[in-house]
Amino acid sequence: MTRISPLQKARYGYVPKLPPVLQDEIARIQAELGQPTEAVADREDLKRLFANTYGKPIATLTRGSNPEAGRRRTVGVILSGGPAPGGHNVICGLFDALKKANRESTLIGFKGGPSGILDDEWIEFTDSLINQYRNTGGFDIIGSGRTKIETPEQFAKALENAKKHGLDALVIIGGDDSNTNAALLAEYFVQQGAPIQVIGIPKTIDGDLKNEYIEASFGFDTATKVYAELIGNIARDAISSRKYWHFIRLMGRSASHIALECALQTHPNVCIVSEEVREKNMTLSQIVDQIVDAVVKRAAKGENFGVVLVPEGLIEFIPEVGALIDELNTLLAKEAEVFNRIDDPRERISWVKGKLSGNNQHVFSSLPETIQAQLLMDRDPHGNVQVSRIETEKLLIEMVSSRLKALKEEGAYKGKFSALNHFFGYEARCAFPSNFDADYCYALGFTAFVLIANGLTGYIAAIKNLARPAVEWKPMGIPLTMMMNMEKRHGKMKPVIRKALVDLEGAPFKRFATQRDAWATESAYVFPGAIQYYGPDDVCNQPTMTLKLEQGLE
Amino acid sequence: MTRISPLQKARYGYVPKLPPVLQDEIARIQAELGQPTEAVADREDLKRLFANTYGKPIATLTRGSNPEAGRRRTVGVILSGGPAPGGHNVICGLFDALKKANRESTLIGFKGGPSGILDDEWIEFTDSLINQYRNTGGFDIIGSGRTKIETPEQFAKALENAKKHGLDALVIIGGDDSNTNAALLAEYFVQQGAPIQVIGIPKTIDGDLKNEYIEASFGFDTATKVYAELIGNIARDAISSRKYWHFIRLMGRSASHIALECALQTHPNVCIVSEEVREKNMTLSQIVDQIVDAVVKRAAKGENFGVVLVPEGLIEFIPEVGALIDELNTLLAKEAEVFNRIDDPRERISWVKGKLSGNNQHVFSSLPETIQAQLLMDRDPHGNVQVSRIETEKLLIEMVSSRLKALKEEGAYKGKFSALNHFFGYEARCAFPSNFDADYCYALGFTAFVLIANGLTGYIAAIKNLARPAVEWKPMGIPLTMMMNMEKRHGKMKPVIRKALVDLEGAPFKRFATQRDAWATESAYVFPGAIQYYGPDDVCNQPTMTLKLEQGLE
Repeated sequence: MTRISPLQKARYGYVPKLPPVLQDEIARIQAELGQPTEAVADREDLKRLFANTYGKPIATLTRGSNPEAGRRRTVGVILSGGPAPGGHNVICGLFDALKKANRESTLIGFKGGPSGILDDEWIEFTDSLINQYRNTGGFDIIGSGRTKIETPEQFAKALENAKKHGLDALVIIGGDDSNTNAALLAEYFVQQGAPIQVIGIPKTIDGDLKNEYIEASFGFDTATKVYAELIGNIARDAISSRKYWHFIRLMGRSASHIALECALQTHPNVCIVSEEVREKNMTLSQIVDQIVDAVVKRAAKGENFGVVLVPEGLIEFIPEVGALIDELNTLLAKEAEVFNRIDDPRERISWVKGKLSGNNQHVFSSLPETIQAQLLMDRDPHGNVQVSRIETEKLLIEMVSSRLKALKEEGAYKGKFSALNHFFGYEARCAFPSNFDADYCYALGFTAFVLIANGLTGYIAAIKNLARPAVEWKPMGIPLTMMMNMEKRHGKMKPVIRKALVDLEGAPFKRFATQRDAWATESAYVFPGAIQYYGPDDVCNQPTMTLKLEQGLE
Repeated sequence: MTRISPLQKARYGYVPKLPPVLQDEIARIQAELGQPTEAVADREDLKRLFANTYGKPIATLTRGSNPEAGRRRTVGVILSGGPAPGGHNVICGLFDALKKANRESTLIGFKGGPSGILDDEWIEFTDSLINQYRNTGGFDIIGSGRTKIETPEQFAKALENAKKHGLDALVIIGGDDSNTNAALLAEYFVQQGAPIQVIGIPKTIDGDLKNEYIEASFGFDTATKVYAELIGNIARDAISSRKYWHFIRLMGRSASHIALECALQTHPNVCIVSEEVREKNMTLSQIVDQIVDAVVKRAAKGENFGVVLVPEGLIEFIPEVGALIDELNTLLAKEAEVFNRIDDPRERISWVKGKLSGNNQHVFSSLPETIQAQLLMDRDPHGNVQVSRIETEKLLIEMVSSRLKALKEEGAYKGKFSALNHFFGYEARCAFPSNFDADYCYALGFTAFVLIANGLTGYIAAIKNLARPAVEWKPMGIPLTMMMNMEKRHGKMKPVIRKALVDLEGAPFKRFATQRDAWATESAYVFPGAIQYYGPDDVCNQPTMTLKLEQGLE
C-alpha cells in the first residue's frame, strides 16, 4: 500500500516559476557568447589539462534563434553525492525542456550516482514517473552515490556506455568535486572525438559552491530554512523553560555558511564561524572563553539559558587542533603496533600524552577524557582520526562546564549551567524544496537543456539575480574551467573548483559581526517557524539572508 | 533591535476558529449541568479528599442566559510544566472572552509556573502584550515552571496571594499532575470559604492526558507534526542515500502516543511501542531481535537502510530492565560507601556484576559497556539511576550491531549495517501551533472563561468532536474528580488523574499492528513535510491520525 502525504499531493500541482526567456519556444532561445574566459588561478596548468575546453566564453540565454533546438536527442543525468532539496526538480526541468523541444527525445537517468554510468544501471524517464517526483525532496528517483570517475578505465567505461545509449549529452548534478568531474569528462569526450556534451549543476546544502557567477548552490535555501525552524523552536523553548543552554552542531563539511545563515535568521547567543577561528588563529580555549563570557553575563541577568551554534567543520579550522590531529595521525601510523597492543583506554591516553610534542601535548591534555578517547579510537581505514565523528558540541559543553566550575569556586559566577546537545544534518537534506529551490532547480534543469540544445559542453548551468523575483532571473552557462584552480589532493596537484568559504569581508558575516555582541547577552531570538509553501509572499517566497545581503537587498 | 519573522507577523493575523456556541455574547452562553459524576476508581477515598468538590456534573456550554456573565472579574493564569504549542493561545482565548464579557475585567499571569503565585510574581495582560503572542509557540509570555503546590504552607500562600489580587478565579494550564493540583486547590479554596474558582486546561505534547472526555491534550498535534516532518525527511534521506539505518528516539515521558502517531504518519520500518513491550513481557533481547529481523530481510533485498522509532520511555517499560534498575537503586543506596570508593569505571562494573542477583546480573551483563557505565554514573539527587538520560537508541544500535556481527559470521547475514542516532524533543515543544492547536487552544481558553462566568470550580475545559471541523466542536466542562483515582507516589497513596497509555485494543495501535510487517520490509515511507499554516484544507487543517482513528474517521 503506497500512501502519499497531503502535502506531497498538493506539491505535485505547484508550477515552478521560470525566468521569462525560458518560457519561449526552445528554438527561440539562443546562447549569446561573450569573450574567452580565464581560470581563477593556475591558468597554464589548466590550459594543458583542458586543451580542448579551457577558456570558453560565458553564455547568456537570450531571445534569438536556434535551428538545432528541435533535433531528437538522448540525454543522460546523474545525481552525485549527498542529497539536497530540489534535485528532483532539476530533473523535471531538464525533462520538460527536452520534451518541449522534441517529444521524441529521451532522458535517461543513471542509477545510484556516477557508478550508474560505469555499471550501466539506468532507467528511462516517462511522464508518469516524473510526475510522481515534481517538487518533492530526496534523490530517490534514481538514487545518488559517491563513486568518482577518476581512472583511465573509468573514463573509457563511461564513454563506452554513453555511446551505447547514443547519448548526445550528460548532465551531472553535484557539488564542487562532481562538477570538476563533469569538466574532466567534457574534456575527455572531446579528446576522444565523441560528440557528447557535459553540463554540470551546482548542488550542495553546504553553500560552498558559489562564486561571482554561481550565486548559490541549490538546496542551501531549503536546508537552512529547516535548520532555522528547529533552532528557532529550540530558542523559544530555551526562553520558555529558562533552564538549558542548547549547543547545536550544524552540518556543513567545512564552510560555515549554514551556521551563519541560521544565525542571521534566528539570532542565537553564540555562533562560531570556523573561517574566523582560522583567520584569527583562535585556540580552543579562546572559543570556550567566548561562550563562557556569554554564559556568565547572561547568568548575571538571571538568564541561565541560551543557544550556541557550532559548525560541523569547526574542529579542523582550529589551528592548534589541526596540528594535534596531524601529529596524532603520524604518530599512530608510525607506532601502530605498540599502540594497538595497549588495551586499556586510559593507558592509551597516557601513552599518547607521553609521545606528543610541546603544544600538541598541551592541547591534547586540555581535552575532556571522552574526546581524547574518541580521537584515539575512531580512525578511518587509512588510520586517520575521523574528525567528522567528533561531537564538537559535546566537547564545548564539557569544556565550558569545567571552566564555569572553576569560576564558581572563585566566586566569579553564580549561575546554573545545564546544557543539551543537538546535531542537525539529515533532517533537512531531503525536505520538500522551498518555493525558491523548487523554482531555482527547475530553472537550472531547463537551462541545462537549453545549453545542450545550443551545442555547449564543459559548462555549469547558472541563474543570475537569484535574490530578486524569478521574473528578473537570468539563465546562463558558465565555463567550468573558469571556476578552477590547482590544489593538492592526496599529495598530488589536481584541478578543482575553488570552494567558497565564508568571506569575513562579505556582507553576511559583517552583518553578523555587528550584531552578535547584542545577541550574546540579550535574548533577541527570532522564530522563523516551518518552511511555508503557501501563504503570503514574504512567508513563502523569501530567499536566504545570505543571498539578500550579498546582493545588497537587506 | 527586536526582529520578528515573516511567519510570526503573518500568524498575528490568523483568526482562530471558534465553535459556534462560543461566538455568541458571553451572557448568552449557559453551562447546562448533567447528573452527578463518579471518579474512575477509589471513589470513597476521593469523596473524602474532595468533600466539597467531588462528583460534580458535567457542564455542556449551550445557548441560554447567564445574568452573571458581565460581572467585573479578576482572573489569574498559570503555565505549568514543559511547554506545548498553543499555550499562548489558551491565554489569548481566556483574555478575549474575559474582555468580551466586561472590558473592565482583568487577567493577570503568574510568572514562571506555580511558583509565581507563591512568590507573587505576576504581570497584568494588556491588549498590546497579548497581540504579540497570538498564534505563536512557546510559554515565554509569562514563563513556566515545575514547582508543585503541595504543602499546607504553600496552599495557604497561594490563597493569600490570590486574595491579595482579589482573584475570582485561577486557570491552570498543565498536564495530569498540574490538573490534579488544580483540583486540590479548588477543593482547598472552597474549604477555606474563599470564592475563588479553579479551572484546569489539558496540556501535554505526550498525549497521555486523555480519556472519554478529554479527546486530546493540546500540543500533541503540533509536536507530532514537527517530529513527523523530521522523520519523513530522514526516511527520504535513507532511501536516497541507501546506506544508513536511522534510530530515532522520540520524546514522551512514558506513553508511546508520540511514537505511534509518528509511525502512522511516516511508516517507518520499525516502531517500538512501550505499552506492547510491557504487555507482552518482552525482553530487551526480543526487541533487538525484532529490529535485526527487519535489517536482515531488507539486506536480502539489497536495502541496507531503514528507520527505527524508539519512544523515550521504553527502557522503563521493559520488565527485565525495570527489575534491574530497581535492584541497582537498592544496591547503590545500601552500599553507597563501598561503591563510591571504587574509582575505575570498569572496576565499578565488575563490582556491581558480582552483587546483582540471577536474571538482573544476566541482563546487566548483556548491556554494552557504555550503557553499563551510564547506569552507574548518572544518578539523580536521590541516588537513583536517571533512566531518562539513557540513550536507548544508542543502546539498541550497539546491540543490533553486535547481533548482526554474529549472524554475519554464521553466514546468515551478508548486508552492511551503518547506523545513525537522533533524539527529537525540544525541536517541537515551542513550534508555532498548527491551525488545529491554535483553534483548539483558543477555544479551550475561551471555554475556561465561560465556565468561570457560570460559577464553576474544579473543572477542566474540554472540547468534544475534535476530529471534525470546528463548526461541530462542543465546548464543555469536565469535573476534575471524575478523571481521578488513587495511586502510590513516593510511597504514599495520592489522588491523581489517571494517565492514558497507548491502548493496545484502540484503533491507532490496531491500524499500526496490521501494517507494520509490510513496513518492516518494504520502503513504504510517507513524507509529511513541514507543518503548513496556509494552503489547501487537507494540507493545513488535518488533525492527528490518532484522533481520526479514535473517532472512526480514518
